[in-house]
Amino acid sequence: MSPDAPAFPRPLQGIVPPMVTPLLEADTLDPVGLERLVEHILAGGVHGLFILGTVGEAPALSHRARHDLVERVCAQVHRRVPVLVGLIDTSVIEALNLARQAAAAGADGLVLTAPYYYPASQADLLAYLRCVVPQLPLPVLLYNIPDRPAPVFDVETVKAASDMPNIVGLKDSSANMIYFRQLQSAMEDQPDFSLLMGPEMLLAEAVLLGAHGGVSGGANLLPRLYVDLYEAAHRRDIAQAQALHKTVMKLKATLFNVSRERSGFLRALKCALSCLGICSDFVAEPFRRFDEPNRQRVQQYLTELGITKNGLTRTT
Amino acid sequence: MSPDAPAFPRPLQGIVPPMVTPLLEADTLDPVGLERLVEHILAGGVHGLFILGTVGEAPALSHRARHDLVERVCAQVHRRVPVLVGLIDTSVIEALNLARQAAAAGADGLVLTAPYYYPASQADLLAYLRCVVPQLPLPVLLYNIPDRPAPVFDVETVKAASDMPNIVGLKDSSANMIYFRQLQSAMEDQPDFSLLMGPEMLLAEAVLLGAHGGVSGGANLLPRLYVDLYEAAHRRDIAQAQALHKTVMKLKATLFNVSRERSGFLRALKCALSCLGICSDFVAEPFRRFDEPNRQRVQQYLTELGITKNGLTRTT
Amino acid sequence: MSPDAPAFPRPLQGIVPPMVTPLLEADTLDPVGLERLVEHILAGGVHGLFILGTVGEAPALSHRARHDLVERVCAQVHRRVPVLVGLIDTSVIEALNLARQAAAAGADGLVLTAPYYYPASQADLLAYLRCVVPQLPLPVLLYNIPDRPAPVFDVETVKAASDMPNIVGLKDSSANMIYFRQLQSAMEDQPDFSLLMGPEMLLAEAVLLGAHGGVSGGANLLPRLYVDLYEAAHRRDIAQAQALHKTVMKLKATLFNVSRERSGFLRALKCALSCLGICSDFVAEPFRRFDEPNRQRVQQYLTELGITKNGLTRTT
Amino acid sequence: MSPDAPAFPRPLQGIVPPMVTPLLEADTLDPVGLERLVEHILAGGVHGLFILGTVGEAPALSHRARHDLVERVCAQVHRRVPVLVGLIDTSVIEALNLARQAAAAGADGLVLTAPYYYPASQADLLAYLRCVVPQLPLPVLLYNIPDRPAPVFDVETVKAASDMPNIVGLKDSSANMIYFRQLQSAMEDQPDFSLLMGPEMLLAEAVLLGAHGGVSGGANLLPRLYVDLYEAAHRRDIAQAQALHKTVMKLKATLFNVSRERSGFLRALKCALSCLGICSDFVAEPFRRFDEPNRQRVQQYLTELGITKNGLTRTT
Repeated sequence: MSPDAPAFPRPLQGIVPPMVTPLLEADTLDPVGLERLVEHILAGGVHGLFILGTVGEAPALSHRARHDLVERVCAQVHRRVPVLVGLIDTSVIEALNLARQAAAAGADGLVLTAPYYYPASQADLLAYLRCVVPQLPLPVLLYNIPDRPAPVFDVETVKAASDMPNIVGLKDSSANMIYFRQLQSAMEDQPDFSLLMGPEMLLAEAVLLGAHGGVSGGANLLPRLYVDLYEAAHRRDIAQAQALHKTVMKLKATLFNVSRERSGFLRALKCALSCLGICSDFVAEPFRRFDEPNRQRVQQYLTELGITKNGLTRTT
Repeated sequence: MSPDAPAFPRPLQGIVPPMVTPLLEADTLDPVGLERLVEHILAGGVHGLFILGTVGEAPALSHRARHDLVERVCAQVHRRVPVLVGLIDTSVIEALNLARQAAAAGADGLVLTAPYYYPASQADLLAYLRCVVPQLPLPVLLYNIPDRPAPVFDVETVKAASDMPNIVGLKDSSANMIYFRQLQSAMEDQPDFSLLMGPEMLLAEAVLLGAHGGVSGGANLLPRLYVDLYEAAHRRDIAQAQALHKTVMKLKATLFNVSRERSGFLRALKCALSCLGICSDFVAEPFRRFDEPNRQRVQQYLTELGITKNGLTRTT
Repeated sequence: MSPDAPAFPRPLQGIVPPMVTPLLEADTLDPVGLERLVEHILAGGVHGLFILGTVGEAPALSHRARHDLVERVCAQVHRRVPVLVGLIDTSVIEALNLARQAAAAGADGLVLTAPYYYPASQADLLAYLRCVVPQLPLPVLLYNIPDRPAPVFDVETVKAASDMPNIVGLKDSSANMIYFRQLQSAMEDQPDFSLLMGPEMLLAEAVLLGAHGGVSGGANLLPRLYVDLYEAAHRRDIAQAQALHKTVMKLKATLFNVSRERSGFLRALKCALSCLGICSDFVAEPFRRFDEPNRQRVQQYLTELGITKNGLTRTT
Repeated sequence: MSPDAPAFPRPLQGIVPPMVTPLLEADTLDPVGLERLVEHILAGGVHGLFILGTVGEAPALSHRARHDLVERVCAQVHRRVPVLVGLIDTSVIEALNLARQAAAAGADGLVLTAPYYYPASQADLLAYLRCVVPQLPLPVLLYNIPDRPAPVFDVETVKAASDMPNIVGLKDSSANMIYFRQLQSAMEDQPDFSLLMGPEMLLAEAVLLGAHGGVSGGANLLPRLYVDLYEAAHRRDIAQAQALHKTVMKLKATLFNVSRERSGFLRALKCALSCLGICSDFVAEPFRRFDEPNRQRVQQYLTELGITKNGLTRTT
């Protein structure tokens, strides 16, 4: 961490979009698209930027490409908002390598999953954290990844691990709201411990009842919408929060639902960014960009919903 | 593939142990233990050697360590049996890199999982195979990895992919025997397509009804036992196959069941190899070697069951 | 339905406790406890009463006992609030029999699960509803039962079935909040279609963003607490809703968590009612009442939390 | 049990078909079809008859219809083979009622599931068995029902319960072959404890390695085929067992796979019996009989495969 780095905000609050990774091909970043995308997102007033997450296709990228991305984004953001870098690896050695690169490049925080190939017990996970986290050069958010049958980190494991000063919060993409509420209860005595909601359909209610913010994929496209929703919920303006929540629900039911496959969200998101001229829609293996019929449906929804580079141009 | 490489056996038959990776610490091979282990396994008459699989902790190793292991094992085996190298990666670029290193080092085949972080559809998987397999420089076995709710590759996907000449078989660790039988039926017209059973408790019945062999983790410790079981089942000597199957069941219920955690098998296996003086019992994160009480239980079972470096010294 | 029955409220709103079934032994109601329990719950200002649900152990009771319970409760409630009767059966014939008994006894509504032994497709479920619902003599709420890997009725199935005038709402015990929000979006154009939340840890946020109420098991013990929470959320008093939500979280983490088994909630609830002298704590097979140590822990929590027959006697 | 009842065979061995229940409508047996079906099955040389199982749609029938079926079948079979009656109920009281009726009607054994609505722990299950089994008037097989994520009865629970003399075996429909082998190992010292395989695709290998027989749904249609397969495997004639196993695999891939829904097997089976003039193809809710296109596909497969009332009329 360079000496002039601002302190990491505790708790981290607001919208921290999980940035998609613009690609020209499997192992080549789209450098111009990347620049445009970063500025597009920052212009929406977001409170941080999370690169190399699930939406960022981190596990599908080579380590070389991951490193390249970290360098470019940190240089471009240049401390305007905190940059968080995902450590989603099966190998602790590779995760540590990336963490050190990220710190050297000027990143502000890390987002750490459990190793996910092997099914580890909660005791294994806690031992893992006690081994790895002290070696990490930046503040760390734990990360319950999506599409697993259960949250990875049990409430008790998070609570136990939270005595490590390096661990500053958790991003929960489990979509298990009972778990999230139990976690909140358990962490009530540590108000600086940031609890961020992954799935954007749960953002409104999460924040209304005390979550610190969201890691909303849709904020790649419409950063202002999610910032507005967060702020409405944060100031407890239910009417406004509910109205914006309905817009998010509509996006999820239309534009982001063009393909019902589980990869559909990512592919629709990249496709929409491409339609707006922001960046390439290339998607890494095992997925691929939308075909022409799906692209036309995305284009049509953009028109119908009034989505432009400048955001939602009319109330839906 | 060097010009003097023997043709890859089609179908690949027999016992192809998934070798554990002897480690001194997180990113350091145990070179002396590795040499001893390779010779110990080959002395048991196995029909191939599979490195960097699930039991080999591949996903937990750095790419550097994986490369190092491939070089050492290929050099040491020196064509005595086919060496297969696991490609268990979330990134196709990294998988291709390893594949090229393996071919250059003299490996004979590859064992390819689907990318496992993102939940891909069967259509995605087939497209993935059609993209990746032609770029692979060696014959390929597909690999259904363990501990997933369902086999990764549907029968129809395997059947469709089997028109690629590079794909020579499948290793099934799903433990779903109905799936395995359906796969056999579907591949009946391609008798050279090798179907190998992962879980060793299912080895006897798999081979009795036509499977080509097994990738039995226990063969790290007792290679001859599994070779004998395979051969008895292959020649349809049910009485002998059943007797050896019972020995395998006993091992799984005792020595390999010292810890009931899902990592218990791997840790018990490394511990037993260490007790016999073959290699280190270090286990990479997110797991760790057995503690002293568990090590003593392993030692006791070795004694009770009459297991030495030379195999089972008495009939159990 | 007798001629003087009040119209079924559309939408049904508020707290509709799923009543436990007081038992003296496996097939014998606790008639005195039952009377006390009904009055205890009604005194809390609830908006309806749901008997023979999951918490009511309906599937574990004989049909004779179910019938007996319906008669007694309908007679005692005597139209003070709507009485809803659960149809949780694997046999449509038995479900229809119970429905007719319930209507004759003066019940006001039915709560219908899908047949749950056989895994039916959504097409099967829709055909099932089109066959069964028109034969039911009372308004019907659909019921997604708890502890299944997924909600039983897909959003599209509910939407399609909602053209039957008899279907007046849905009780969701799936704990899948994304599903619940999608269901709300889909039913937005039918504001009379009642959406009730099962899990009480999700009651506050469900109602804050528009759910019609809750079927809260804890309201057997503390009906006023859940009614207050519902009303605070309904009038969008977030501060009050959050304070009461925290009390619910505390109950779930202490009193209702004495046993961590999945049957723990039911057994703790019956035990607490017994400690307060309201009804018997007998639990039908396959469960059984708490043993003495657990009963003492329940008693202790009741004291600590200040819970009496009259409710929470101090702010937690 | 009447005084002239033969002793229940220990272990129960061979093919015990789970009989479909011929229905004219939802609550009405097809009495003529039932008679024909019983004789058709018995003519195939089966070793027992299991009524009111999963394939028998027991959970979907009214208790009245279940009772009616028991009376008719016991009278007709008249001790020619043992008749086993399924107790698949959520209510122990109702299960006990049916058990007593079955004993009075002359049934020979019972097949008992765990109560399946509530997720019971293994301790609950064992306590349940210790409470219920001594009250049952006939020998009991435990029953792991299909389509659950895991076998219901853990190996340890079965082992512990097997000290009750009334429990004479277990029918495993979990399709988890590792579990089945572990169960065999655990019960090795009780050779009279019958282990029967549910899924017919696993019948050959189950019996080759020591299972006592199978509860094969396809034996409603082709009883002789499954009896022949059992006998070949039992006498360890692998070539013959494998040939018959391939016929079973072919049936499962064609005739029984006309609909891929999980109810497809049952509906195809009833449809095929109807095409052969044996009994009605009515299926109870939540399913329904095949439509005309599917019925024609069934008829075509019957012709192609050479299936008549008299069995397979040519080698497939």
